[in-house]
Amino acid sequence: MGDLPKRVEFHEEGPREGFQIEKKLYPLADRVALVEALAETGLAHIQVASFVNPKKVPAMADVGAFFAAIKKKPGVHYTGLWLNEQGFLRAKQTPGVDLQGKLSYYASDRFAMMNNNCSADEMRERSLRWLDLYQEAGVALESALIMVAFGCNLQGEVPVSAVTDIVRWLDGVLKQRNLTLPNLYLADTVGWANPDAIKRRVAAVREIMPTVRIGLHLHDTRGLGGANVLAGLEAGVDLFDSSVAGLGGCPFCGNDHGTAAGNICTEDMVFLCHELGIETGIDLDKLIEASRMAERIIGRTLTGKIMHAGSLARLRAGARQAAE
Amino acid sequence: MGDLPKRVEFHEEGPREGFQIEKKLYPLADRVALVEALAETGLAHIQVASFVNPKKVPAMADVGAFFAAIKKKPGVHYTGLWLNEQGFLRAKQTPGVDLQGKLSYYASDRFAMMNNNCSADEMRERSLRWLDLYQEAGVALESALIMVAFGCNLQGEVPVSAVTDIVRWLDGVLKQRNLTLPNLYLADTVGWANPDAIKRRVAAVREIMPTVRIGLHLHDTRGLGGANVLAGLEAGVDLFDSSVAGLGGCPFCGNDHGTAAGNICTEDMVFLCHELGIETGIDLDKLIEASRMAERIIGRTLTGKIMHAGSLARLRAGARQAAE
Repeated sequence: MGDLPKRVEFHEEGPREGFQIEKKLYPLADRVALVEALAETGLAHIQVASFVNPKKVPAMADVGAFFAAIKKKPGVHYTGLWLNEQGFLRAKQTPGVDLQGKLSYYASDRFAMMNNNCSADEMRERSLRWLDLYQEAGVALESALIMVAFGCNLQGEVPVSAVTDIVRWLDGVLKQRNLTLPNLYLADTVGWANPDAIKRRVAAVREIMPTVRIGLHLHDTRGLGGANVLAGLEAGVDLFDSSVAGLGGCPFCGNDHGTAAGNICTEDMVFLCHELGIETGIDLDKLIEASRMAERIIGRTLTGKIMHAGSLARLRAGARQAAE
Repeated sequence: MGDLPKRVEFHEEGPREGFQIEKKLYPLADRVALVEALAETGLAHIQVASFVNPKKVPAMADVGAFFAAIKKKPGVHYTGLWLNEQGFLRAKQTPGVDLQGKLSYYASDRFAMMNNNCSADEMRERSLRWLDLYQEAGVALESALIMVAFGCNLQGEVPVSAVTDIVRWLDGVLKQRNLTLPNLYLADTVGWANPDAIKRRVAAVREIMPTVRIGLHLHDTRGLGGANVLAGLEAGVDLFDSSVAGLGGCPFCGNDHGTAAGNICTEDMVFLCHELGIETGIDLDKLIEASRMAERIIGRTLTGKIMHAGSLARLRAGARQAAE
């Protein structure tokens, strides 16, 4: 396993993914406590909330109060998500949000229509206005994310060319504007990815943009989350979105049989990296404590595994002691 | 991903693992229905029950009635597990059991003591008597399994040499007796394995026994089950033990925090193989139906993922139809 990255970065999305999907509204103090606990683990990027229509997502109605209440830790980025210009403008007016210039694209027209009420091409055009907005606001471009890059429940298979078409177009736009894109994410929005699909897309994107850092936004919808992370690592990917305790799954509203698993679980994947000798800068035991806090707040068993089994650190230490 | 095996075999352990670990006794008719449903999926090996002390494991008290009640499907092997000679002798006297000569070893003394009340070396010596018994009974040798081959909660790290010592000794015994061992399993009994550890052990075993078929018995204790299967596939492993719906986890008695995840989930891993173009001989949709039956019988949400999200077959077909 010699070609793995030396260091991997996890961007935590648990607070946004987890609370957004719940019907219940959770106390502000609990949500703040979770974000503050996550910031103590070594995670440097925490997506706190989304700037979406509070009529559609009531859990995100108090996003301003949420950001304001968090006691910030220096060096940690507290970010937000938006899917349209109004969202960005709200984020810009919200104190405490670390604004990062993000672009979003769809590899499937039908998914774009359902999620954003526009075609995939219209989403490209909109992103040009987002670039203008970011420039006006002095917000540096941070990442572009290609949604449903592996398959789409509405459209079916998404070919590699649907991804590379976007990347090639975006590469042209960036060159025209003399902009550099630090990170390009491939998102398995609805759980179609597999290890082979990951390796093929990562290689295809690298051919077009050899210097961009490729990130993966993966869900564990069909149980391949961990295998897909390993495939990403083997392809040299060193940036992953993930959710503490596997937050983000929907226990009520799966796409077929009643439930759907959430994002890949941060602490399980941090454990994977550490066991493979890959640094993450994260204190796994503190992260496991944060995942247990998330479970207490949500009030039901969450899907993370190591949070329930416990890390190996204590067992290793106990065995060493017993041997002495 | 060119070096993957063309075809992979899954040995189903859900009935034995799943019901053994539960405190509740489940109706015989339900257990029989699950085994019969599994036999319809294309699975050719189903471990039905274990021949253990019914005073210690009450769920296995009616194992004779269980085997007798199953309507057998030709070509399917209905197997049992034993950890001592008495267990084998009971299995031999039980009609309907497909007897397969299995040998068990421990890579950790302290685990052997806890699980089998003997040292790892004594377990080796006992296996010589098992070989005699199998020969007397006309039972062909099928597999050897090395437990805690990746790490042990009591002893800590298990070095590769602890595994290769057993394999080298066993190779000598087999040569002396002019016996051939078809399958050699490495078992991650308590969830210490990682992809690197798998590749190193598989390579080390192959050096000693180049022609044995290597199998993996993996648990998803700390969320690395899928990544470990992928690592196994990449190392050419084409034989896995697994449990439908991830049965075998213990919701009450984890080793640290209250619960422990079970074996790798058969249908999730079959899905992984199919997406990678690897044949399994299994009808995934039928297997998902069997996993949902398991969940109904057990009466709580089980840890399998694709059973809740649904396979991609229906989504692919729907998308094709919509495109026409």
